[in-house]
Amino acid sequence: MVKNDLLLRTAKGLQTQRPPVWVMRQAGRILPQYRKLRGSFQNFKEFLYNSEATAEASLQPVEALGVDAVIVFSDILVIPEALGCNYEMVESKGPVFLNKIETVADVLNLNSLEQAIESLSYVFKTVGIIEEKVNGSLPIIGFAGGPWTIFAYMVEGKGSKDFSTAKKWLYQNPEFSHQLLEKITDLTIQYLKIKIQLGCEVVQLFDSWAGILSPVHFQEFSLKYLNKICKSITEVPVILFAKGAMLNLDSIDKSECDVIGLDWNIPISKARQNLGNSRVIQGNLDPCLLYADDEIIVRETIKLIQEANGHHIVNLGHGVYPDTDPRKVKLMIDTVKEYSY
Amino acid sequence: MVKNDLLLRTAKGLQTQRPPVWVMRQAGRILPQYRKLRGSFQNFKEFLYNSEATAEASLQPVEALGVDAVIVFSDILVIPEALGCNYEMVESKGPVFLNKIETVADVLNLNSLEQAIESLSYVFKTVGIIEEKVNGSLPIIGFAGGPWTIFAYMVEGKGSKDFSTAKKWLYQNPEFSHQLLEKITDLTIQYLKIKIQLGCEVVQLFDSWAGILSPVHFQEFSLKYLNKICKSITEVPVILFAKGAMLNLDSIDKSECDVIGLDWNIPISKARQNLGNSRVIQGNLDPCLLYADDEIIVRETIKLIQEANGHHIVNLGHGVYPDTDPRKVKLMIDTVKEYSY
Repeated sequence: MVKNDLLLRTAKGLQTQRPPVWVMRQAGRILPQYRKLRGSFQNFKEFLYNSEATAEASLQPVEALGVDAVIVFSDILVIPEALGCNYEMVESKGPVFLNKIETVADVLNLNSLEQAIESLSYVFKTVGIIEEKVNGSLPIIGFAGGPWTIFAYMVEGKGSKDFSTAKKWLYQNPEFSHQLLEKITDLTIQYLKIKIQLGCEVVQLFDSWAGILSPVHFQEFSLKYLNKICKSITEVPVILFAKGAMLNLDSIDKSECDVIGLDWNIPISKARQNLGNSRVIQGNLDPCLLYADDEIIVRETIKLIQEANGHHIVNLGHGVYPDTDPRKVKLMIDTVKEYSY
Repeated sequence: MVKNDLLLRTAKGLQTQRPPVWVMRQAGRILPQYRKLRGSFQNFKEFLYNSEATAEASLQPVEALGVDAVIVFSDILVIPEALGCNYEMVESKGPVFLNKIETVADVLNLNSLEQAIESLSYVFKTVGIIEEKVNGSLPIIGFAGGPWTIFAYMVEGKGSKDFSTAKKWLYQNPEFSHQLLEKITDLTIQYLKIKIQLGCEVVQLFDSWAGILSPVHFQEFSLKYLNKICKSITEVPVILFAKGAMLNLDSIDKSECDVIGLDWNIPISKARQNLGNSRVIQGNLDPCLLYADDEIIVRETIKLIQEANGHHIVNLGHGVYPDTDPRKVKLMIDTVKEYSY
C-alpha cells in the first residue's frame, strides 16, 4: 500500500501538492455506521472500554469520508479516570464526575502514574488494532486533553460555561493547582509516548477550555504545561489546539509545538500574518459552515486554503457538530483533495 | 443631593479624579437582600414583572456596594418575549422558550413593534420608580441584549454552548436572518429610547454570544446591528460589550459606540495600545479574581487602573458570579474609590 504522507510532511514543514485534511470528531457523532456501532452498547463508557469497537469507530471515516489521517477514537477524560476520578457520560448533559477533586487530600490520594497507565491499557489496545488494520497506509493521530482542561473537569466535576469552581482554585490555591497540573502533565506525557510507540505518528493536544482563562492565567496554568508536553514529545509532530485562546497566538507561537491549531474566531489571513509564512497551522473553518449550501462550502474551503498560503492542515475550527450531514463533510474534504497548490 | 457624575463624565470622554466603578449583574445574584426579595416570589418571571420589586433590586447595590451607577434590574429576554416568544427561567438550566422561531412564518407572525412596546410597560415602570428614588444622585444605566444574542435565543430556544441551530440559520437563510435581526434592532432602539426618556443616562448593549461567530459573521450579523443602535441612540452614551469578540476590537472601534466593554480575555494594556489613549473602555477584571485573597484583589484592581491609563470605567469582564462574596466585591469597589489619578 502506498503511504499517504501529506499530513506528516506538512506537520514537519515540508511542501506538498495539496494540503492534508481531516476533521476533529470525524470518528463518531456524524456517521450512521458509528451510531449503529455505538447503539450496540448500553452506554458510552462500555463502548469506550471496548478496544475493537473504538478501533472500528476510528477507521469508519477513512472509507466514509476519505480523510488523510485516522484519529484514535477515545475521550480526553480517560486521563482523570485513570487517576481515580470516575465519570459518567450523561445524555444531553455531558460528563458528570462521581468523585471530583475538592481538597488537597484528594490530590494526594490520586492513583500513581503506574496505576493510571496500567488502567489505560484499553486505549493502547485500540491503537494496536488500528495500526494493524491501517498497515502504514495512513498516519494515525493520538490525542490528549490539555492539562488545564483536564484539571477543569476534575475540579468542576462536570461541564460548565465558565468553570468558575476550577478557576477559583487557581486564585485560591495556586500551589495546589500547579501540583495537580504537574501530575496530569506527567501522566499525559507517558500516555502519549506509549501511543506513539504503538503507532501514532502525530499527536494533538486539545485545550478545549483555554479560552476561559485570563491572558496571565493562560500563560501560567495552561500554556506552561502544554509546552512541557511539546518539549517532551520529540518523537513525532505535536499539534497544539488551544480553543478560544487565539488572542494568545504570539505566546502559543513561542511554544515548541509543531503545528498551531486555530479555532474559527480568527481570520486565517490574520493568523498567517502574525505567525509568518513558515509556521504550520491547522483549521479553521466554522463548523456551522457545513450546514450551508454546497457552493458556499466549496467556495469557503478554497478561500481558506488560499488565505492560509501553504503549510496548512485543513480542518474545522472545532469538532464537527453531531447533526452535520456526512455528505457535506465529504464535500469539504473532496474540495481539498481536488485542490492543487 | 450632589450628583455623582463620574460615569457620565468618563463615558463622554472627560477627565475625572478617579475612574467610576460598577459591576455587571450587581443588581441581583450576590446580595442576600436580593435573594430574600426574589424568594418572596414564586418564580423568576413573576419577580421580573413586578416593577416595585425590580426597582428595589436595582437600588440594593447602591447601599450595599457603593457603586457609581444604578443599573435597571431586568433581563435581555424581555425583548423576545415582547415579540411573542415566551420563555421560562428554569433553575440551574437557564431560559427555555415555549415558542421559538423555526420558520419564516414564525418571523412574520411576531407581534408588531407597537404591541411589543406596550407589553414592556413593566420595565418602563421600573425605570420610573428608580428615577424617582435616585433623585438625580446617581446615573441610571439601561441595557438591552445585542440583536444577534437575542436572535440566538429566539432561534435556539434555549441556552447553548455553540448555538449551532441559530448559526445554521445564518448560513442557510441569511435574508430571513437579517429580517429578524432588523425587527429586533428596531424594537431595541424604541425600547432604549423610552428608557432614556424615563431617566436612563447611559445604555449598555450586551452581545453575550458575539464570541461564537466567525469574524465575517460578526461583522454581518452582530456588529452591523449593534452599530445601527449606536447610531440611533444620540441622546446618551452607549457602552458596547461584545463578549468573546475581542479579536474584532478594530472593527468595534470603528463603530459609533461611546465606550467599548472589554471581557477578560484581552490584556487591558493591549486593548489600550490598539485603541489609542482617548477611546473610553470598560472592564476587564476576571470575575474569578473576586474569589482571591484580599491583597490580590487590591493589587490587581490597582494594576488594572494603571494599565488602562485613564478614560476607563472599572468593571468585571463579565457578570459577577453568583457565589461571589459581596465583601470581596465591595473591596474591589473601595479600592477604585480610594484611587486618585
